Amino acid sequence: MTAAGLTKFKHKYQVRVRYFEVDSQAVVHNARYLEYCEAARVEYLRGLGRKVKPGAVDDKIKVMIKKNEIVYHHPAKLDDLIDIYTRASFIKISSLGFEQVLVNHKNEKLLCTLNVIHVYLDPVTEEPVRIPDRYRKLFRDFEKENIEFIESK
Amino acid sequence: MTAAGLTKFKHKYQVRVRYFEVDSQAVVHNARYLEYCEAARVEYLRGLGRKVKPGAVDDKIKVMIKKNEIVYHHPAKLDDLIDIYTRASFIKISSLGFEQVLVNHKNEKLLCTLNVIHVYLDPVTEEPVRIPDRYRKLFRDFEKENIEFIESK
Amino acid sequence: MTAAGLTKFKHKYQVRVRYFEVDSQAVVHNARYLEYCEAARVEYLRGLGRKVKPGAVDDKIKVMIKKNEIVYHHPAKLDDLIDIYTRASFIKISSLGFEQVLVNHKNEKLLCTLNVIHVYLDPVTEEPVRIPDRYRKLFRDFEKENIEFIESK
Amino acid sequence: MTAAGLTKFKHKYQVRVRYFEVDSQAVVHNARYLEYCEAARVEYLRGLGRKVKPGAVDDKIKVMIKKNEIVYHHPAKLDDLIDIYTRASFIKISSLGFEQVLVNHKNEKLLCTLNVIHVYLDPVTEEPVRIPDRYRKLFRDFEKENIEFIESK
Repeated sequence: MTAAGLTKFKHKYQVRVRYFEVDSQAVVHNARYLEYCEAARVEYLRGLGRKVKPGAVDDKIKVMIKKNEIVYHHPAKLDDLIDIYTRASFIKISSLGFEQVLVNHKNEKLLCTLNVIHVYLDPVTEEPVRIPDRYRKLFRDFEKENIEFIESK
Repeated sequence: MTAAGLTKFKHKYQVRVRYFEVDSQAVVHNARYLEYCEAARVEYLRGLGRKVKPGAVDDKIKVMIKKNEIVYHHPAKLDDLIDIYTRASFIKISSLGFEQVLVNHKNEKLLCTLNVIHVYLDPVTEEPVRIPDRYRKLFRDFEKENIEFIESK
Repeated sequence: MTAAGLTKFKHKYQVRVRYFEVDSQAVVHNARYLEYCEAARVEYLRGLGRKVKPGAVDDKIKVMIKKNEIVYHHPAKLDDLIDIYTRASFIKISSLGFEQVLVNHKNEKLLCTLNVIHVYLDPVTEEPVRIPDRYRKLFRDFEKENIEFIESK
Repeated sequence: MTAAGLTKFKHKYQVRVRYFEVDSQAVVHNARYLEYCEAARVEYLRGLGRKVKPGAVDDKIKVMIKKNEIVYHHPAKLDDLIDIYTRASFIKISSLGFEQVLVNHKNEKLLCTLNVIHVYLDPVTEEPVRIPDRYRKLFRDFEKENIEFIESK
């Protein structure tokens, strides 16, 4: 990951690798990165004025994860500081894509990249609903030209 | 997931959703499925005569996860029984692909599908190494014609 | 833990140590034992006809953990099988005590012992309530003379 | 916990409750507090010049947890900020006691209190060893008269 590759990212969050998060190789367990990235997205959304809620239900909308695609490049080690870069990359009719890049704070090694897709659902029927315009605006105002709006599923 | 879609899978493992694995929606947290699938792969490999070891180092080879791609279809709930179907799907020069399908034991709903790639490394240099023939044979003997051998990276 | 010390225990549950549960010493992380013990208590309660529910609310009663006291004797290692012995040891006005003993299945080494106290609450006021007689009966019928009933807080 | 009760504590660390740490009651799972407290102790020890290491082996000494005793007062909820107060409370021949108090940052409610005992071991024999004087000095210099030195097991 060159510095250039990160210019699209306007949000950065940091975690330190805790003792219980590493495995017997003394590197971060592969599932822990999903937790780090979730924590980063919560802070990203907080920055946009949205608050995490129990049940992930916000304004009568339920948000679920549809897909996680994570590629591991270098392992993070016990006590490492990790910089997590987060950006909303696209909005389709009812789904929202995030791209996240994790970098070792000290040596700037690329640790892993995550593409995650959120889907917005009706909390009762659990059917996908159109992402409301007020949310679309939040992301557009923050991401500017770097987020794609796609009128398909 | 029709029953037909599972005919290639010769290994099945079961977990029950524990209390600490669900989130505030009372469904399994998205990162937990990676842990379930890892437990299933350990049992798959045990069936082939391989044992899980600290450091994931087996016969002077270190195994790391290169990629996890997981698609979520329906959430598993507290106390649900989950059937995990596992198969090795391909072997490239130094990487090994697994496909895993998680199904609700009771109502047979498809929960999620995972494609995970393991990479075999030299434990000292951490460079990829060719997956040894003794391992290739283990997978071929078990998976028969359902595993692809690909002579590329 | 001599075999004699376990005669009071009528419930046994088994877990296998999973890869993501060990730390960089390749032994089970100290917090994981609380999760194992919780899973064992769920099975204990299932045997008594009670079912785990989201929110831990059962018949208009909310159950919370008041105290965990865990003493570690020997570490469990990756892939070890652990036998968990569970018994309800006392019932006070609104609290219920469990004693749990974890033993390495293979070599019978004592791993750790847990004393945990549950408290029964009104789900609305969150004030302690008297444990209903129907529950008291369940525990008495199963534990016989080995459970103490104490009319104090 | 009155403010007076915290005067002995010279170290404070903060965590925010993450989404994957709460259970179906939308409160922090009881085992997660042990992880928060461990993270706080790592920072406490870092302040004393000690660094967390894989294997928890520092200068040919292995540190294991001997006991956790945790009392829960009020639950922490999703997204709460928690202040963790940590102090070393006693040093015996080969064991070290910590007292930790967790307080809701916003409303100052007492969440839980933990007493944890570390034991120092020879990494080869795994027998307890005397805590070296250089460590005793570190704790005395920081805790002053608030830490007890006890010449017994």
